[in-house]
Amino acid sequence: MSKLVIVGTVAFDAIETPFGKTDKILGGAGTFIGLAASQFEIDPAVVSIVGGDFPQEYLDLMNERNINTSGIEMVRDGKTFFWSGRYHNDMNSRDTLATELNVLAEFNPVVPDGYRDAEVVMLGNLHPSTQMSVLEQMTSKPKLVVLDTMNFWMDSALDELHKTIKHVDVITINDEEARQLTNEYSLVVAAKKIEQMGPKYVVIKKGEHGALLFHNDNIFYAPALPLKEVFDPTGAGDTFAGGFVGYLAKTRNYSFENMKNAVIYGSTLASFCVERFGTERMINLEAEEVRKRLQDFKNLTQFEIELT
Amino acid sequence: MSKLVIVGTVAFDAIETPFGKTDKILGGAGTFIGLAASQFEIDPAVVSIVGGDFPQEYLDLMNERNINTSGIEMVRDGKTFFWSGRYHNDMNSRDTLATELNVLAEFNPVVPDGYRDAEVVMLGNLHPSTQMSVLEQMTSKPKLVVLDTMNFWMDSALDELHKTIKHVDVITINDEEARQLTNEYSLVVAAKKIEQMGPKYVVIKKGEHGALLFHNDNIFYAPALPLKEVFDPTGAGDTFAGGFVGYLAKTRNYSFENMKNAVIYGSTLASFCVERFGTERMINLEAEEVRKRLQDFKNLTQFEIELT
Repeated sequence: MSKLVIVGTVAFDAIETPFGKTDKILGGAGTFIGLAASQFEIDPAVVSIVGGDFPQEYLDLMNERNINTSGIEMVRDGKTFFWSGRYHNDMNSRDTLATELNVLAEFNPVVPDGYRDAEVVMLGNLHPSTQMSVLEQMTSKPKLVVLDTMNFWMDSALDELHKTIKHVDVITINDEEARQLTNEYSLVVAAKKIEQMGPKYVVIKKGEHGALLFHNDNIFYAPALPLKEVFDPTGAGDTFAGGFVGYLAKTRNYSFENMKNAVIYGSTLASFCVERFGTERMINLEAEEVRKRLQDFKNLTQFEIELT
Repeated sequence: MSKLVIVGTVAFDAIETPFGKTDKILGGAGTFIGLAASQFEIDPAVVSIVGGDFPQEYLDLMNERNINTSGIEMVRDGKTFFWSGRYHNDMNSRDTLATELNVLAEFNPVVPDGYRDAEVVMLGNLHPSTQMSVLEQMTSKPKLVVLDTMNFWMDSALDELHKTIKHVDVITINDEEARQLTNEYSLVVAAKKIEQMGPKYVVIKKGEHGALLFHNDNIFYAPALPLKEVFDPTGAGDTFAGGFVGYLAKTRNYSFENMKNAVIYGSTLASFCVERFGTERMINLEAEEVRKRLQDFKNLTQFEIELT
């Protein structure tokens, strides 16, 4: 089984949407990526940091899904990273109500010995130097490195970001961030420019408008599944990334053609994530549900025009 | 060959985009729909009205493409409908600089005798009572009636709009207008509500984010082709509609499955329309270019996941 190293936050979230609000619940990019990736027969490990307030049951929950948590450092006298946000009615924008870095401020990721030869590395949204330090710990060159980032790092650590993305195969980024990083409005032009910065593949996430995969002159597009309601978008992007890397790690085929399938798996899993608060839906997701929804994606996008 | 009746404006447009500006050029929904539909082996007729200032060469241009123009009334001492607009940098919004209705203010469409038994009727964006009067002239029930509308009529003629859409099979509408018509944010829920108003099929156009086709619990999605630059979006929605009805008229198959193909053809033709000012690209479009771009759409959207 392919090993997959995931570095990312493991956190508490408190979320308000028009449908309700939560107390502190399980969240964090590393968590969402791990839960999505664990849908595939692979050997994933999450590298992160939590405080003494982090419940053992959450670690158990990950372990039960074959997610290795030996790389999650626990700082007994520290507090777990906490994020709180409120979504607006359209669910496309949100206010951050609180960000308490806590133990994350001192995060120096350590990849467990048994995972330093992993085939696939997923660098969740963190300081680009933190992401780089994970790559430096790998004893053999990974077959695939995927990096997620956001505008915050473009504003505060652009040089480090440029340095790190030179070393990755795939970058996932949202549309506004792609425009910010390149000063180009056209996503086609922006993707070309990002490819020149290092990543051979560029995934541009457009939220409810789907995701685009770019590679040289090839483009693939996966829509988001149109839903009657989006209950809570938190974690959808990370779930997308987890499905993407999980599928690639399982199939061990890192071609553009197979990345198309990976994008579809990512979109499929993300469509579940938003149906409930936080990780709730992902924790209770059955393989048969995923299979059915892949069929929905086929029905949504596949057509029969024969070209002669 | 299937007959297709198209009612819509034939007009002069003056357009400003970040790439340049035009004097008065050929425009109008009826024109764009007709040019797109004429890509298919069908017998289309445009029903419209123009002034004495409308050049014969524009009518010749339509006739050369087998578009019947006997239903375009010419008011010798009147002036042709004129619209002028300026697009913003993102091309997704525009300011209307001038709207001179001129002869359009007195438009009473008359469907030519030879087309009153047409299989397909495309009601371009006009007052809903004007659209209705076209349906009332049909001597046999069309196999397919498609209606396009916009927020202006929801604001100014909502009762008439509700009356007219009871009689159509397909409505094409943009996302914001679908939300306005139904008071629902979710497009899935909005489409359901619109289906209850009459149309069995609902096409929601999302501009650069593609188009959705709804029918009962079925949804199909066609992206817009990602382009390096959008030169002029004018007429893209009408070109989409023209490709949609043209393909359906040619194939005479009005099933949901075939409408998927029609949506892809509509998106394909619209992707050409935006490459030049006004009708310029559509007038010079070759069948081989369309075939190649359909292949681009396949590459963009088709994937190979096998479900067991």
